[in-house]
Amino acid sequence: MMDRRGTRTGEVMEAIRRRMAGRTLSPGEKLPSIRSFAATMGVSPSTVVEAYDRLAAEGVIQSRPGSGFYVSGALPPLALADAEPRRDRAIDPFWVSRQSLDSGAEMLKPGCGWLPADWMPNAAIRRAIRQLARADDGLLADYGGTRGSLPLRRLLARQFADEGIAAGADQILLTASGTQAIDLICRFLLRPGDTVLVDDPCYFNFQALLRAHQARVVGVPYTRTGPDAELFAQALAAHRPRLYITNSALHNPTGATMTPQTAHRLLCAAAAHDLTIVEDDIFAGFEPEPSPRLAALDGLARVIRIGSFSKTLSASIRCGYIAARPDWVEALVDLQVATNFGGPSPAAAELVFATLNDGSYRKHLDGLRRRLARVRRETAAKLEVLGLRPWLMPRGGFYLWCSLPDGRNAADLARAALHDNVVLAPGDVFSVSHTASGFLRFNVAQMGEPRIYDVLARAMGGGLRPTASFSV
Amino acid sequence: MMDRRGTRTGEVMEAIRRRMAGRTLSPGEKLPSIRSFAATMGVSPSTVVEAYDRLAAEGVIQSRPGSGFYVSGALPPLALADAEPRRDRAIDPFWVSRQSLDSGAEMLKPGCGWLPADWMPNAAIRRAIRQLARADDGLLADYGGTRGSLPLRRLLARQFADEGIAAGADQILLTASGTQAIDLICRFLLRPGDTVLVDDPCYFNFQALLRAHQARVVGVPYTRTGPDAELFAQALAAHRPRLYITNSALHNPTGATMTPQTAHRLLCAAAAHDLTIVEDDIFAGFEPEPSPRLAALDGLARVIRIGSFSKTLSASIRCGYIAARPDWVEALVDLQVATNFGGPSPAAAELVFATLNDGSYRKHLDGLRRRLARVRRETAAKLEVLGLRPWLMPRGGFYLWCSLPDGRNAADLARAALHDNVVLAPGDVFSVSHTASGFLRFNVAQMGEPRIYDVLARAMGGGLRPTASFSV
Repeated sequence: MMDRRGTRTGEVMEAIRRRMAGRTLSPGEKLPSIRSFAATMGVSPSTVVEAYDRLAAEGVIQSRPGSGFYVSGALPPLALADAEPRRDRAIDPFWVSRQSLDSGAEMLKPGCGWLPADWMPNAAIRRAIRQLARADDGLLADYGGTRGSLPLRRLLARQFADEGIAAGADQILLTASGTQAIDLICRFLLRPGDTVLVDDPCYFNFQALLRAHQARVVGVPYTRTGPDAELFAQALAAHRPRLYITNSALHNPTGATMTPQTAHRLLCAAAAHDLTIVEDDIFAGFEPEPSPRLAALDGLARVIRIGSFSKTLSASIRCGYIAARPDWVEALVDLQVATNFGGPSPAAAELVFATLNDGSYRKHLDGLRRRLARVRRETAAKLEVLGLRPWLMPRGGFYLWCSLPDGRNAADLARAALHDNVVLAPGDVFSVSHTASGFLRFNVAQMGEPRIYDVLARAMGGGLRPTASFSV
Repeated sequence: MMDRRGTRTGEVMEAIRRRMAGRTLSPGEKLPSIRSFAATMGVSPSTVVEAYDRLAAEGVIQSRPGSGFYVSGALPPLALADAEPRRDRAIDPFWVSRQSLDSGAEMLKPGCGWLPADWMPNAAIRRAIRQLARADDGLLADYGGTRGSLPLRRLLARQFADEGIAAGADQILLTASGTQAIDLICRFLLRPGDTVLVDDPCYFNFQALLRAHQARVVGVPYTRTGPDAELFAQALAAHRPRLYITNSALHNPTGATMTPQTAHRLLCAAAAHDLTIVEDDIFAGFEPEPSPRLAALDGLARVIRIGSFSKTLSASIRCGYIAARPDWVEALVDLQVATNFGGPSPAAAELVFATLNDGSYRKHLDGLRRRLARVRRETAAKLEVLGLRPWLMPRGGFYLWCSLPDGRNAADLARAALHDNVVLAPGDVFSVSHTASGFLRFNVAQMGEPRIYDVLARAMGGGLRPTASFSV
């Protein structure tokens, strides 16, 4: 009897350890209640009590009297004092998302990841909408095909051909968004516990997404010419990742561009270790001239290209895409049917197609690039006055990745600025290794308000306080 | 050395067994190639060869010379001779989806799950679209809040209040579709290997979705008054499922309605076993008068209500919703940000809101219900002539779940009808236990073409051939 009880205790301990390894339970997170976990495991509550006590004795978890058991580990640098349960986590990648998506019009958002609404091609979109009002009943009412709008896929195939990527319309799958495109690929290729390589720093939502897939995330230091190719190859050998996710042109958050040499070295290393690469091309439209693409060099053999229209066309009319090997697209179609019943909204795809085809769209892109080049220079100059220095001057896009003066902590600054209704993007939310606390990502298109610089200056004055507390 | 090699072989065997247990590898599916799986596992190809050989000796997998290794097990009753890899599976729930979504205008689709386009409220949708063309730039260009359109959530909250469900707008989360709503809940509550209860028969895509989550699916026999409450309670005790997914009103595929007694018994059993229930209310708009709802009885404590507008408004302008406990909604918001960056398309939500608010929408629903009642009677009468008998006459909706004359096999019929450009929905794609081969689900709104009955009559003539082969 004791033996069996002992075995069950061990099983419960093992189940908790597995959840921690798979990131289902993260540092600082509360463990399931005794009663509910007993039911989950099909054991008695006393068995769970014993298992939790033993894990606490090992220091793996901690008991907080009157509250329950919590996973031990680093406390969240950006934990909000009044946090919801899921916000109470180490360097929460949801912080910037939710602050910038959900806060009201009184908030200034130099930390957000999109252009102001009046920079978008709204006249062309309104024309497309009026045209949609005259479309066939079928387009307005039906689900549409599983790959999504054929005219839009053909248009994309032509664009890809111009970039040297031969992909038929059948190799393109439309999705509800760029993020959902990556999500679908992760579902297809990853299993809980698999390792995924990302750039350090990288787009913070990659980390959130990979956490949702219970992937192990390993960062590769990012240089001004792309990820460090030497360390990339070492990481492949050491961690055998299943996937690498990157932006090759106009990298988020640094704005850097990968050189052809780096691209070639990455692909050679990827081939040697049978690694799949997701190339997120969401900022492609902002490039002054095309830069090397992994998908073009590789020919969509082990590279999957994804993208969307949210940055240059509309984030309200959402549509993304995947271009990949034909057999993978087939599998992804099934997965998208299972998880979203069919492709993206046919009405949305039609609006995107009509806007891209509008005579004004190319001029809109040209205008955006010129305008961004100007505000990038102006913003960089104003930030330099405050001691905020761009890590590099990007060729395009709207990001400036800036280092803070010695000793300043970006998370402290973000907390202080939030008091003044300014949402910043502190470096560590982009960094898997949490080594970017001395950086902020600025969106130069959202920096027109002089008040932002006042708030920054004031926050920088207090930016040395390591114990700055946060409350709303 | 031999020891270590032996251990590694065991690990590879164990990895394959785990994938089979978690449904990552299903009966009939091809195993990864020796080379790629060796790379995945970080072992030599010869180790994988040995592991595959041993599994083959155990009968777990089978070698097909010149082709590779396949998981043993029942052969897919609906396997297409020219199948893509992912189609080549036991009772493939993707079959009906892809046939009905992707086939051309020459196909008649009495097996599909939606109304003809000209039955939808297209005039009101066109008015909503023209109104959208005059909206603010922000609505046309921005991501919108993470919960989705507040006006639409408020409208839903008022509808729920009328049904006796007190849910504030903050307890409602808009999603890209009804399927995506369930998907998000599965991500939140399920871990690979968890057990989920469904009705037998149930909407076939529930099975596809749960397979994507690597859940173990257990079916509860469905009766004319809802799931068999006795067997439901037994299944909870025996399998300790995490989740039960059902349509409580106008069940898909049978069209049955759960009685208040059944609803009460299910909720008592669920409470005793700490089960969460997802109530998919997608056919609610078709009910002649409201029927008991699990969410109303339970008060959204352990029931999560989901729904969408695809069946009565538009499947092209896609939008779904989740109503749940406030803390669960918070967690689901984070998950939706991570996997889709934000909520559903604000433009789509605005079109749905404007159409629901259009004075004509209530009349549209009344008209739909009357029209469906009429074609339901007419279709049932025509099917009876062919020996196809409705299991029950539904109170509403567009489905008729019909039994075939003795010995006829629905999958054979579906294969034969596909030759004649008619897509049917054979019973076993809805049945976890594959015990519905004597049923077909018909969509009475898609049965206007006399040719359908000719094709059915012809196919029934040949429906006894158990070895009917399929080729396109």
